[in-house]
Amino acid sequence: MSIYETDLDKSLANFTSLSPISFLERTAKIYPNHTSIIHGNRKFSWKETYERAKQLASALLKSGIRTGDTVAVMASNTPEMYECAFGPAMIGAVVNMLNNRLDSKTIAFSLDHGEAKILIADIEFSKIIKPALSELNRDIKVIDIRDSEYYGPGDQISDVDYETFLASGDLHFKWQLPKDEWQAISLNYTSGTTGNPKGVVYHHRGAYLNSLSNIISWNMTHHPIYLWTLPMFHCNGWCFPWTIAALAGTNICLRRVNAETIFEAIATHKVTHFCGAPIILNLIINATQIEKKDFKHRVNVMTAAAPPPASTLESMQREGFHVTHVYGLTETYGPAVVCAWHHEWDDLSIEEQATLKSRQGVKYPMLEKLTILNPDSMEPVPSNSQTIGEVMFRGNIVMKGYLKNPTATKKALSDGWLHSGDLGVIQSDGYIQLKDRSKDIIISGGENISSIEIEDVLYRHPDIQGAAVVAKPDEKWGESPCAFIEIRENTNLTEDQIIQFCRKNMAHFKCPKSVVFGELPKTSTGKIQKYKLRKRLENSTT
Amino acid sequence: MSIYETDLDKSLANFTSLSPISFLERTAKIYPNHTSIIHGNRKFSWKETYERAKQLASALLKSGIRTGDTVAVMASNTPEMYECAFGPAMIGAVVNMLNNRLDSKTIAFSLDHGEAKILIADIEFSKIIKPALSELNRDIKVIDIRDSEYYGPGDQISDVDYETFLASGDLHFKWQLPKDEWQAISLNYTSGTTGNPKGVVYHHRGAYLNSLSNIISWNMTHHPIYLWTLPMFHCNGWCFPWTIAALAGTNICLRRVNAETIFEAIATHKVTHFCGAPIILNLIINATQIEKKDFKHRVNVMTAAAPPPASTLESMQREGFHVTHVYGLTETYGPAVVCAWHHEWDDLSIEEQATLKSRQGVKYPMLEKLTILNPDSMEPVPSNSQTIGEVMFRGNIVMKGYLKNPTATKKALSDGWLHSGDLGVIQSDGYIQLKDRSKDIIISGGENISSIEIEDVLYRHPDIQGAAVVAKPDEKWGESPCAFIEIRENTNLTEDQIIQFCRKNMAHFKCPKSVVFGELPKTSTGKIQKYKLRKRLENSTT
Repeated sequence: MSIYETDLDKSLANFTSLSPISFLERTAKIYPNHTSIIHGNRKFSWKETYERAKQLASALLKSGIRTGDTVAVMASNTPEMYECAFGPAMIGAVVNMLNNRLDSKTIAFSLDHGEAKILIADIEFSKIIKPALSELNRDIKVIDIRDSEYYGPGDQISDVDYETFLASGDLHFKWQLPKDEWQAISLNYTSGTTGNPKGVVYHHRGAYLNSLSNIISWNMTHHPIYLWTLPMFHCNGWCFPWTIAALAGTNICLRRVNAETIFEAIATHKVTHFCGAPIILNLIINATQIEKKDFKHRVNVMTAAAPPPASTLESMQREGFHVTHVYGLTETYGPAVVCAWHHEWDDLSIEEQATLKSRQGVKYPMLEKLTILNPDSMEPVPSNSQTIGEVMFRGNIVMKGYLKNPTATKKALSDGWLHSGDLGVIQSDGYIQLKDRSKDIIISGGENISSIEIEDVLYRHPDIQGAAVVAKPDEKWGESPCAFIEIRENTNLTEDQIIQFCRKNMAHFKCPKSVVFGELPKTSTGKIQKYKLRKRLENSTT
Repeated sequence: MSIYETDLDKSLANFTSLSPISFLERTAKIYPNHTSIIHGNRKFSWKETYERAKQLASALLKSGIRTGDTVAVMASNTPEMYECAFGPAMIGAVVNMLNNRLDSKTIAFSLDHGEAKILIADIEFSKIIKPALSELNRDIKVIDIRDSEYYGPGDQISDVDYETFLASGDLHFKWQLPKDEWQAISLNYTSGTTGNPKGVVYHHRGAYLNSLSNIISWNMTHHPIYLWTLPMFHCNGWCFPWTIAALAGTNICLRRVNAETIFEAIATHKVTHFCGAPIILNLIINATQIEKKDFKHRVNVMTAAAPPPASTLESMQREGFHVTHVYGLTETYGPAVVCAWHHEWDDLSIEEQATLKSRQGVKYPMLEKLTILNPDSMEPVPSNSQTIGEVMFRGNIVMKGYLKNPTATKKALSDGWLHSGDLGVIQSDGYIQLKDRSKDIIISGGENISSIEIEDVLYRHPDIQGAAVVAKPDEKWGESPCAFIEIRENTNLTEDQIIQFCRKNMAHFKCPKSVVFGELPKTSTGKIQKYKLRKRLENSTT
């Protein structure tokens, strides 16, 4: 045995579990009076947020919640939601933030599958929650959130409200770090376009590490003013509830996300950072002069979810926003890839910059490996921007697995890699670029055509607001690209004009052969539902 | 068993050991052409530094070095030294950076005790190395570093030089992460003022985490220009070799550290960050107009080791340096406590700011617990700035233990805490302030007097360049404070003037009762050797 393995064991003094709860405890101690959260007229200090999280933990414990129990939450981005990123974890419970745009059936499925012992829910969602609870074949304790900033309709669900529940807890509660940092901290259901959602399980170690990844890859310093445009139920807000605690920042809550509220928050609170899918960027780009507000400070935006068209990135930059492009999956704690910037690129034209930035990029600081492999041979594809393979991840910010689904877990994590199901290429500088979901690639006359590439061209047209390209069955070619287009108000575009525009900007064989106009169907998280478009085409051709 | 503990095991896809080697690999891939190191006329890119580290690992392996073997290095802050922070770790070996200011006997002790299998040494130190090797009762492979920037005397020690050795290695060497992140990465001998040095063992996990702590607590962003004023043999350069790799920064090496070379580097390379004991700060403050150079950019300085007098911090600030004060031990991977800044303090006078900043502060981001306990009862002292207790640490950045010294390890890590041996108080805001090493406290008439407090007053006197206060045996009081003073050139001070100055600035019972003039003895790392002063007093009274 090596001398370094003798009498040098772990002990209480030199080994502790990594957990993001430690960030909150530290910040509350060092910056007790610094503002943690602003939500309309409500304002909290870090001391208060820490105490409220402890009260929540204590109240949950008194209600019988134990290590490994699921605490479901259905809320907007309010202080209560933020507290739920910490309180349950303090007693080893697992928080399951539910997507508040889903239907009762799906919510009932999550509550059932996740075996939630308690549900904390904002009364705004009573119309979804009540039928979901009826569908669930067991009783479950419910706590109502009555948000001071909510003025819409909503029924009482429970006779216990959140503040009363909190008051039953001890604000000096002595919480514990998990005995093992591999212990689960949260459960996030995928919004799965087909089939039942899968329950992605995160652990304390991964949550801790990806919170730090956010800091490093975004060059974040102490005391950011962080605006909550990204729903916290989306991959635990990409780990940002924990990141902001680590940096003693200020969380600006936003119950209704639209252009006006975003600009208002930026101007009033001097927001320095926010995250959002391209749908958020589009809100900003398309804002009217009345909705817009001037600001002089630097605003950093992190975007992901769907690959943003280069034109969107370009417009954001012209509006004065500094955009960082990231990419990840629910299975990777949110962002796990970043288009890391190079100073040399500052000298390029804004268009060239946007093109470089629209690539997904390189591995996040705390991800161990990122690559694109041929999924059959498991060999890496060459770095030639051409050969398409499957994006694969490895490291501590890859999920524990899917809850109660060993088959799916085994399949997703086989051969030492998380198989993303996303297709992409590696460019000569090692940056990856997504080409499609496996099922979104169009195979026309034996050639692989990336629907994203076509969409990227379409988005450059000034009159096009939204675009999605899918494969249409084609007698001659097998498949051909069909473009679904949302045009801007007060503009006019014909099918032929669109096809001609594409032919000017890309190889002819890749251009759409047909165009359909109309509103694009989107998931609750803003992703365009291509399977619905595909279905439309099937129905129209049969 | 909880549903969260079933079929959700660790696998190659979702669990990897934390190791700072990953930082180098990532940065070399993303920023291959960014400058990693500048050393005089030599300049490297991150691609080159990564390849050289791999070559070093490969060459070591070919020489028979295996996991758990010790690789000793005796060098200045040169590119070779930097590469040694990575190369040995890539094959699971443990690097032992030797203090190049030590004598042959102590070096021989380290090589013997650490069981070094190989020694990489700069020929400048041949005069120390050769007798050390003779003293060592076994053969050891030696590799000579012949630094292009060294022009002084020095003899060939080995017939293999570093570049030849490197060339025998494979630059595409496939290194491995440690199987267990608890595996040792480095060995650092304490400079122990009495008795044999103790070998402090660090692991990959702690090295990884404290590298990130540096980033967060110092608000570091990508591409810092880091000047190597702090010796890398000092707690592995406080983990900064790894921090700079994580941020794709540029290391500016400095073979000879003095006021002129520091200012020259700041002006030429636009240095953004450097670290150093107060001795480095004094070099800057006392620099002549000829040595100084103008600079316009912000320079961040991290200082630790001995508690810097408030007056030193004040002078640095006036010179345009932004000082962050940290504190730690060899046993805590270097810095583990930081005087975290509050924006509100910006409005205070520069003197008040310096006083706040001279406190040691709060726990580092990745340290789990920091407290001051009564070492007998192990109860925390009240936060009253008065009650003195022992500073205690807990967390992942506490050492594995002392090599081959289970008794000392057990003693240092007993009761779940690392016992620092340093004495301090907790202020009302939770910030800790050191009062003394246990053995440096002066007990006079039953009152505890902090020698640091007296020194802090002495340093405010414009004619005093150095001050150290120790206990002098006293018939009436048991002990009384005796001040050893170094005065500035061309100034004049009497014992009485000094005592009067103290009486004006602090409680009379705390003032020195006697003063001794002369140069202060210092350790190789710049710490004043109080035990020598104490010895002088013993000798003078017997």
